[in-house]
Amino acid sequence: MQTDGARTGLQLRSLVKNNGDLEVSLIRVPTPVPAANEVLVRVEAAPINPSDLGLLFAGADMTKASQRGTQDQPLVAARIPDAALKSMTARFDVSMPIGNEGAGVVVEAGSSEAAQALLGKTVAALGGAMYSQYRCVPAEQCLVLPAGTTPADGASSFVNPLTALAMVETLRREGHTALVHTAAASNLGRMLNRLCLEEGIALVNIVRNQAQVDLLRAMGAPHVCNSSSPTFMEELLEAVSATGATLAFDALGGGKLAGQILTCMEAALVKKATQHSRYGSTTHKQVYVYGVMGHGPIEIKRNIGMAWGVGGWLVFPYLQKLGPAVMQGLKQRVASELKTTFASAYAGEVSMAEALDLKTIAVYNQIATGHKYLINPNKDVPNTQVPD
Amino acid sequence: MQTDGARTGLQLRSLVKNNGDLEVSLIRVPTPVPAANEVLVRVEAAPINPSDLGLLFAGADMTKASQRGTQDQPLVAARIPDAALKSMTARFDVSMPIGNEGAGVVVEAGSSEAAQALLGKTVAALGGAMYSQYRCVPAEQCLVLPAGTTPADGASSFVNPLTALAMVETLRREGHTALVHTAAASNLGRMLNRLCLEEGIALVNIVRNQAQVDLLRAMGAPHVCNSSSPTFMEELLEAVSATGATLAFDALGGGKLAGQILTCMEAALVKKATQHSRYGSTTHKQVYVYGVMGHGPIEIKRNIGMAWGVGGWLVFPYLQKLGPAVMQGLKQRVASELKTTFASAYAGEVSMAEALDLKTIAVYNQIATGHKYLINPNKDVPNTQVPD
Repeated sequence: MQTDGARTGLQLRSLVKNNGDLEVSLIRVPTPVPAANEVLVRVEAAPINPSDLGLLFAGADMTKASQRGTQDQPLVAARIPDAALKSMTARFDVSMPIGNEGAGVVVEAGSSEAAQALLGKTVAALGGAMYSQYRCVPAEQCLVLPAGTTPADGASSFVNPLTALAMVETLRREGHTALVHTAAASNLGRMLNRLCLEEGIALVNIVRNQAQVDLLRAMGAPHVCNSSSPTFMEELLEAVSATGATLAFDALGGGKLAGQILTCMEAALVKKATQHSRYGSTTHKQVYVYGVMGHGPIEIKRNIGMAWGVGGWLVFPYLQKLGPAVMQGLKQRVASELKTTFASAYAGEVSMAEALDLKTIAVYNQIATGHKYLINPNKDVPNTQVPD
Repeated sequence: MQTDGARTGLQLRSLVKNNGDLEVSLIRVPTPVPAANEVLVRVEAAPINPSDLGLLFAGADMTKASQRGTQDQPLVAARIPDAALKSMTARFDVSMPIGNEGAGVVVEAGSSEAAQALLGKTVAALGGAMYSQYRCVPAEQCLVLPAGTTPADGASSFVNPLTALAMVETLRREGHTALVHTAAASNLGRMLNRLCLEEGIALVNIVRNQAQVDLLRAMGAPHVCNSSSPTFMEELLEAVSATGATLAFDALGGGKLAGQILTCMEAALVKKATQHSRYGSTTHKQVYVYGVMGHGPIEIKRNIGMAWGVGGWLVFPYLQKLGPAVMQGLKQRVASELKTTFASAYAGEVSMAEALDLKTIAVYNQIATGHKYLINPNKDVPNTQVPD
């Protein structure tokens, strides 16, 4: 991929300085000219996922952020606490583009047949740097969206849908039959709920308030537990007993929740056991922590026997292990069910400049259900940068 | 196996009543007559392992235990706290024999060739109920000890040696090259240290005081960290960096130690990384908790990236997965190195009655290095029960 210098587009960048200063800004970058097997995508929708926020704000205290620059090219500045800064030496003074996934229209294509076939198509891509007006990606990385699918419909074609599907793959490949999910009212949680209903897999949804209980029940979820309820542990034990869940995916990864899930799984297994085993149940119970929403250490009580595991889990390294054929099959399934099983909901659509508004940041940086935004890098921007 | 009613021997039993009373006593049981493929072992040495204590005392408060009965057949009574009692319903009112492993002399054999070949031999067995004067076991479960090996030498042929060997198997099969071990001055720890020196595997030994540091250094251990030292975390980071350890076996399984090990592993990996990764190091770091010496919950801080796991680990279920051929090879290796790599040390040898002395219990129930006892069920007992 080359650039000709004459065409430019805006791109969102995050810069961490070695003194702990964070600068998030919009800069103008040359628009690439696609190589033979590449296409140029005019990005029209890219979600702000929790997995983007870590890179975007680098653990900085955004409640004390300040804004300068112009309306079209704002710059947000904030301070990164020393504790967080230690793990970032490798990105010091590297201006990083952001945005794991997104969707848009192919406006230019390289000479190869595969690239030419995509011209004019609406595609989704997991390319990184999707918070850009124009993004050049290899043709084979594009997921062609079915007719009638808008970029907004397809913006979240990868991270959440593949995570939900990979959770079900994990369940099957590790020999479990039912599972527990925390933060279950999230976009991902609702997807997983639809997927499990479709696949006939028993799912225990853990949410944080009654409104979320109602939301999931209205979606047909049979097992919903409210972690704010005074009888949470009893509810969870009952749901885990009823489903036989021995696998959990925990979005929080901090505090007592992962341990509480293991405690209930073990109690459910011991209750059914007919023989005393000094080491507790011999059935393996597993909690995978896939997010970092929770703060503070993970606490695991020792009333869980010896057949247990807790560990980090990341969707893409996991899918990579399964191989490209499995991955391709899952992607095609996502494309065909984007408006049903894998539909996403957003609080609103913002331009890149609007995404750097301090009030907007305060909303989406909470990572709370119903506070997810979609960035449209070409919103409100005259189309003069489009190559013709 | 049958009994003829005329011959009896003493056996140690543990009984949990549904009201929370624990009774540990010596009872007289009929001496079995071996079936065709069985042998009768006169047990002369059986260690009190941490894994026996859970079954023996059932979590009772032994500091408030009382003793009654006779000198030859004492009975120790204690109370089990309600919290511990809940997990024991399956053993209520079942008088359980104790003693995972031990060694003795084959005094009688069934008619099969395999059984007859063992007559008069000194053998070790992992039979359970080894705190018995006479124990009938299948011939194929006996490990024949080399000439010149006493029952005391071979009493601990299974639990500790196979645990050390299975740790090394785990390391190799899961692709690690160096490991960390806690409670490293224990009999098992010293075995693992000798084994790793022999195999050229870098081992980081974590111990609890300077005397234990000196002990392991004198045994040639290059990496010993004292968890009581004010600079423990720095020492551990240095040792983990120097060895590249990404696997740990933790005997404690309570408190912060497992998390501290992961923290140091991640810090060592990030220090060597040249590229920033938002999810931390991609190298998997694993801590297996194989004991329950520590109390309180396990605490894991979230400064360990996403490629990590913590889980329970039990030697025999693990070895079972590897299959009988691997197990047999490991057992033969143990037998041939019982006086070197797999040598054990004991604070003393006691009879079963002496093992129920409250002062003796107070010593071995601490599960502290240097406080391990060997039970000789035939110590001080006239040999009148021997079948002739």
